[in-house]
Amino acid sequence: MTYDPSNIFARILRGEIPCKKHYEDEYVLAFHDIYPKAPTHILVIPKGSYTDIVDFGANATAEEIEALYRAVSKIAAEAGLQTAGFRTIANTGLNGGQEVPHFHIHLLGGKKLGPMLAE
Amino acid sequence: MTYDPSNIFARILRGEIPCKKHYEDEYVLAFHDIYPKAPTHILVIPKGSYTDIVDFGANATAEEIEALYRAVSKIAAEAGLQTAGFRTIANTGLNGGQEVPHFHIHLLGGKKLGPMLAE
Repeated sequence: MTYDPSNIFARILRGEIPCKKHYEDEYVLAFHDIYPKAPTHILVIPKGSYTDIVDFGANATAEEIEALYRAVSKIAAEAGLQTAGFRTIANTGLNGGQEVPHFHIHLLGGKKLGPMLAE
Repeated sequence: MTYDPSNIFARILRGEIPCKKHYEDEYVLAFHDIYPKAPTHILVIPKGSYTDIVDFGANATAEEIEALYRAVSKIAAEAGLQTAGFRTIANTGLNGGQEVPHFHIHLLGGKKLGPMLAE
């Protein structure tokens, strides 16, 4: 899939639309989901233009990969999610229910989450 | 949380109990979940002893991090999950519903998955 630079996360990264920023470094941006599905719902995205987790894992640099997953860990710990627990989800494509074609990781917590997959 | 070396994935890594292996490299093992929750349900784990995604992201080496996420990408692509789509989930702690205290990533696909969180 070709990356579509008009997607909403690309626009957030370009500063064209606002976000409630939670964390930022050279390679990573994290912000609060505007339609939270749990008390804590943070989206963690690479600044690079990757459509999904497969594209990212195949084409990102080692530095980008390390930065993203170090950030996920740091954000979860600093948001106080580790002790009580939380869920990390990346949706890809139609079967996965991906809504924005820029790779993003959902961090969901703040309550006891239900089964891993809805029936 | 201190790593508990008696957990089932540690035992699989030590060869004490079998698994239906899907992929292996220096840092990573992937195998099929024995209780699949979707037509394709693969577990991807680091060979290192990390309790959860926060422990992994904070304490794994750059090589381990890169290897794990490159493997997730490769496994998903080779299992034919990318085109139709799939979901990647990591559960942490009680709120996340983590069942085995060795960090693992679920790859779920082969059908249209439901909402990201069960209500």
